[in-house]
Amino acid sequence: MLRIAVLGVGRIGRMHAANIALHPRAALAGVFDVNDAAATEIATALGTVKFASAEEAVASEAVDALLIASSTATHADFIEMGVAAGKPVLCEKPIDLSLERVETCAAKIAGSPVPVMLGFVRRFDTGHRAVKAAIEAGRIGDLHQLAITSRDPGLAPAAYIEVSGGIFRDMTIHDFDLARYFLGEEIATVSATGSRLVDPALMERCDDYDTVTITMATAGGKQCVITNSRRAVYGYDQRVEAFGSGGMIATDNKPLDNTRFSGPGATGQAPALLDFFIERYDDAFAAVIGEFVGAAEAGRAPAVGFEDGRQALILAEAALLSVREGRTVSISDIG
Amino acid sequence: MLRIAVLGVGRIGRMHAANIALHPRAALAGVFDVNDAAATEIATALGTVKFASAEEAVASEAVDALLIASSTATHADFIEMGVAAGKPVLCEKPIDLSLERVETCAAKIAGSPVPVMLGFVRRFDTGHRAVKAAIEAGRIGDLHQLAITSRDPGLAPAAYIEVSGGIFRDMTIHDFDLARYFLGEEIATVSATGSRLVDPALMERCDDYDTVTITMATAGGKQCVITNSRRAVYGYDQRVEAFGSGGMIATDNKPLDNTRFSGPGATGQAPALLDFFIERYDDAFAAVIGEFVGAAEAGRAPAVGFEDGRQALILAEAALLSVREGRTVSISDIG
Amino acid sequence: MLRIAVLGVGRIGRMHAANIALHPRAALAGVFDVNDAAATEIATALGTVKFASAEEAVASEAVDALLIASSTATHADFIEMGVAAGKPVLCEKPIDLSLERVETCAAKIAGSPVPVMLGFVRRFDTGHRAVKAAIEAGRIGDLHQLAITSRDPGLAPAAYIEVSGGIFRDMTIHDFDLARYFLGEEIATVSATGSRLVDPALMERCDDYDTVTITMATAGGKQCVITNSRRAVYGYDQRVEAFGSGGMIATDNKPLDNTRFSGPGATGQAPALLDFFIERYDDAFAAVIGEFVGAAEAGRAPAVGFEDGRQALILAEAALLSVREGRTVSISDIG
Amino acid sequence: MLRIAVLGVGRIGRMHAANIALHPRAALAGVFDVNDAAATEIATALGTVKFASAEEAVASEAVDALLIASSTATHADFIEMGVAAGKPVLCEKPIDLSLERVETCAAKIAGSPVPVMLGFVRRFDTGHRAVKAAIEAGRIGDLHQLAITSRDPGLAPAAYIEVSGGIFRDMTIHDFDLARYFLGEEIATVSATGSRLVDPALMERCDDYDTVTITMATAGGKQCVITNSRRAVYGYDQRVEAFGSGGMIATDNKPLDNTRFSGPGATGQAPALLDFFIERYDDAFAAVIGEFVGAAEAGRAPAVGFEDGRQALILAEAALLSVREGRTVSISDIG
Repeated sequence: MLRIAVLGVGRIGRMHAANIALHPRAALAGVFDVNDAAATEIATALGTVKFASAEEAVASEAVDALLIASSTATHADFIEMGVAAGKPVLCEKPIDLSLERVETCAAKIAGSPVPVMLGFVRRFDTGHRAVKAAIEAGRIGDLHQLAITSRDPGLAPAAYIEVSGGIFRDMTIHDFDLARYFLGEEIATVSATGSRLVDPALMERCDDYDTVTITMATAGGKQCVITNSRRAVYGYDQRVEAFGSGGMIATDNKPLDNTRFSGPGATGQAPALLDFFIERYDDAFAAVIGEFVGAAEAGRAPAVGFEDGRQALILAEAALLSVREGRTVSISDIG
Repeated sequence: MLRIAVLGVGRIGRMHAANIALHPRAALAGVFDVNDAAATEIATALGTVKFASAEEAVASEAVDALLIASSTATHADFIEMGVAAGKPVLCEKPIDLSLERVETCAAKIAGSPVPVMLGFVRRFDTGHRAVKAAIEAGRIGDLHQLAITSRDPGLAPAAYIEVSGGIFRDMTIHDFDLARYFLGEEIATVSATGSRLVDPALMERCDDYDTVTITMATAGGKQCVITNSRRAVYGYDQRVEAFGSGGMIATDNKPLDNTRFSGPGATGQAPALLDFFIERYDDAFAAVIGEFVGAAEAGRAPAVGFEDGRQALILAEAALLSVREGRTVSISDIG
Repeated sequence: MLRIAVLGVGRIGRMHAANIALHPRAALAGVFDVNDAAATEIATALGTVKFASAEEAVASEAVDALLIASSTATHADFIEMGVAAGKPVLCEKPIDLSLERVETCAAKIAGSPVPVMLGFVRRFDTGHRAVKAAIEAGRIGDLHQLAITSRDPGLAPAAYIEVSGGIFRDMTIHDFDLARYFLGEEIATVSATGSRLVDPALMERCDDYDTVTITMATAGGKQCVITNSRRAVYGYDQRVEAFGSGGMIATDNKPLDNTRFSGPGATGQAPALLDFFIERYDDAFAAVIGEFVGAAEAGRAPAVGFEDGRQALILAEAALLSVREGRTVSISDIG
Repeated sequence: MLRIAVLGVGRIGRMHAANIALHPRAALAGVFDVNDAAATEIATALGTVKFASAEEAVASEAVDALLIASSTATHADFIEMGVAAGKPVLCEKPIDLSLERVETCAAKIAGSPVPVMLGFVRRFDTGHRAVKAAIEAGRIGDLHQLAITSRDPGLAPAAYIEVSGGIFRDMTIHDFDLARYFLGEEIATVSATGSRLVDPALMERCDDYDTVTITMATAGGKQCVITNSRRAVYGYDQRVEAFGSGGMIATDNKPLDNTRFSGPGATGQAPALLDFFIERYDDAFAAVIGEFVGAAEAGRAPAVGFEDGRQALILAEAALLSVREGRTVSISDIG
């Protein structure tokens, strides 16, 4: 039984805690949150203990591993604490908004055998895994062009956007990781375009973008386009299309159910899409816990780790630089 | 150049005339209609001659073949006239509402080498032909179950319904023919259910049904279900599904275009369906003319002939008997 | 906490036991099976007790309710025992292969307030529920025609087929229940066709059919067609299509994932279907337990009960009679 | 009757000639080709006259208008000749491979009221028109992101590629025009990535690319991504997706027919795609003739004209520059 403490019990932390409780070889070892009242409430609701601090959780003999779902600014500190204590860590993305902080964290944990996993949940989606499996099985031949469409169902609150680190570090970061996952070779160049169309005033104020398109290429010439919007009125749009010398495979969105309606003037209508990421990726979130438990038990590297988190952040930096300077940015110039 | 006279220039006759004009090896030789004013108008519009009578058209040296699109009651007479004159005939369905009349007509033309083709247009639809080809190529193994869904977009006018001969002879007749086309062996038993749901008062008055389901089986046990309704608010519903020991192949409906729309609450909406049969089966109607021209030129039997029209009518009689008597009817008991 | 004993721990019983363990307000109270070795193994694996007999399970003070997943011949006895003991019962279909036995059971439990639920799992499928909700919300207007396609991915072993009670009582029984669920009014007439196409020799020996089509109508004229096959090579085919005066809504099959592949000669291929019922209806099986727990807690009638099981069996009897006698059977003549 | 001479009777010219012959208000006035034997053969086959030179065709009193489907290098000359003679011109894309030549041609015909139409056939596709209509009707709100996927079914012969002017001027030119058509405002910036993945040796030799991705933005921030490949093994891939503040509308590919096949291991397979552009866009090519005839009759500007051809070429130049210099190119810097 891997006893996991959850640091940060906002919406994502709570969801992870529930998945830990459901996993046959994992147990919830307690929770911590800077909002003490919230931590108390959640601990009571889940029938677990509340830790007074992250340090207490890390030090506890009843804790084998850590799940970090606290605010981004704390991620790197908590990773370092967990690794120092020899306790496997599963950390939500991003590692940090600052690449410098990520680098110092990387330096600190370098050489440690303690498993550190990044919560890039989309790699664990059934459809995405099927695309990856098809690529690896050679079903589409050599991958030539990859298209990732990722649109949120609605703009997050201004308070969230303001501290998010910007769309590339906050939202596209998932797609950067997916791109690396599917491409199977490192990305060499990034070119991005950013627009302010959903909420121009907010974006102007935050010096951010709500609508972006990013084109990337590997040294071998494989191309990837990521299309993001902060608001799709038809719901959480999550699609991947991989085109190669031997064919094309794509994953489609997930509607609420598998019905189709035909009425006057419109036929074959599917219902609304699953909304939002917790519903859309529920199987994947459970699989994340499964992978973490497996890696922690075996003391092996998880399927997606710290370096993946660092590389995704480098791509985010490159994209931002590309928009700002109106040029194609070489990854070798970053970090 | 096969010079074809069109007898009856209502909506269907005019459509056929246009297709004759477009065919590279056919020419419109003139038109006849009991409504003389209509005939005059059409002849002028199409730049062709008007015949004063069907007899005149048949006898004309400028006429090589006949297309019969006049009222049902005249079909058998005109077929007999054409065959007697040695002129190939393409006749719209049904041959006649009375099986007796069909039998006497059959007796009269028996032994003649003159091609007589029945206008069962659906056999010439691209999708239906692809299903047939898949069956013949063994793609679905042995055919076990066939489902034909056929629903009109709206109830025909009462004046039409009253003289239509009833839903089985007027509407299902197409599906009976399709069933024979796909099954590839003669049907042995018919069991039907009829309801009055679209316009109960009209159906009551006409002793007819607007909603029917017919189950048929061949001697070998292959099954076919036909589902008909006189009114589908989402449009002209025309689907076939063939299930066999090796797989399943189905044809879907044809929307106005190949777009899909996603908006709040509904995703993947296709537009309305092509409406009505002249639009839905436009390619097929052109192919009907092509087959007729080919058969007439070669003096060979057309792909679908008089006997197919007779067999479809027998199935209609059997279905009606089944509804009336609440029993499974053997085809060997009919006709 | 509702403590539920599981009687019969074959494949279905075990699956139910796992779902009980996962339900937050239910607990597995023990298992019983006539195969004592199997019962011991399962009890150990699930960390629960083994009962020496069904009687012991029913009598145990540690048991609040019963889940009956034993062989069909024991269902009625166990239902009677549970009701006599005042313990809510969730019974797998069918109640019994003999309508007479069902009637005596009905008489014995008549008037008891103890909840008896039938395990018609398909009513709890997300897609089927969405169809039902659409009908009830008036989205398709008045229901006119219902089509249920239900095909197993492969023929069950001969040993199973021989004691199954025949395709109507064993397989179609689910579809009969679904038909009643969607139609919302009792069925008046049944007409069925049976063929032996998948394994003619076995079917001949068992006097059974592997390929059947059943047409039913309510007194009001609503029509329903059920299409069954014991073997679909493309997998577990489970579809429902409801057509009404205002539109049509259908549920489609569930492939393994939401990918589509395009290669030379074929485009838009979805993967194989979920196979078999435990995978296809996994959410629905969990929802069955949820409904049972809710009904048992409240002492209320469950959403699907004993009478639904009896009515489905009556339809099976009627279908068999229709095939044997080649006629449309009135339900009022049965039972 | 608009009497149209066809200059250049290769595959495209012959197809246009056939469509002219089918149009009710157009007639084929003769053909010219530098390959005199080919011209003779086609003239005989189509029952029309052969002109000894383009000059003769333009000067002929029996010619009202010109359709230019000759080699690209002749387009600008023939346009100038037609306009000088006061005869409406329909010219295949591109106007010329050199922007300078296009500019001198523009200067020569400036101010003339003679209709000059560019053969950007995709604007006339039913699906694309439906997307445009949906945008104009406000169905997707404000357009934010447009994605055009355009892949050829196979690499053209090396001899063609070598003189094609490169992928941007030869192939993407259609997509540049479509982008302008849908965006409804001029494009401000272009950023492109080019790879050599289909036939690296040939592309190296021609200093060309076979796999490109182009991102464009309007001054208002609307984004468009074009994805091109010279070879898709699953066929001619032609899709458009328009995303806006109120929804998304997309056109899908066109398979050979509307069937779906399910067999062991794969379900819902559509057949191969229509291949190639003459089949895929056959309705659109006919509509091009219709629009040209209408514009010529009325002496009005056609729906797509010379300036559209010039703008598309400017975008091609910008894309090439972007790939070469690794930067986002402003359209205002070109031309």
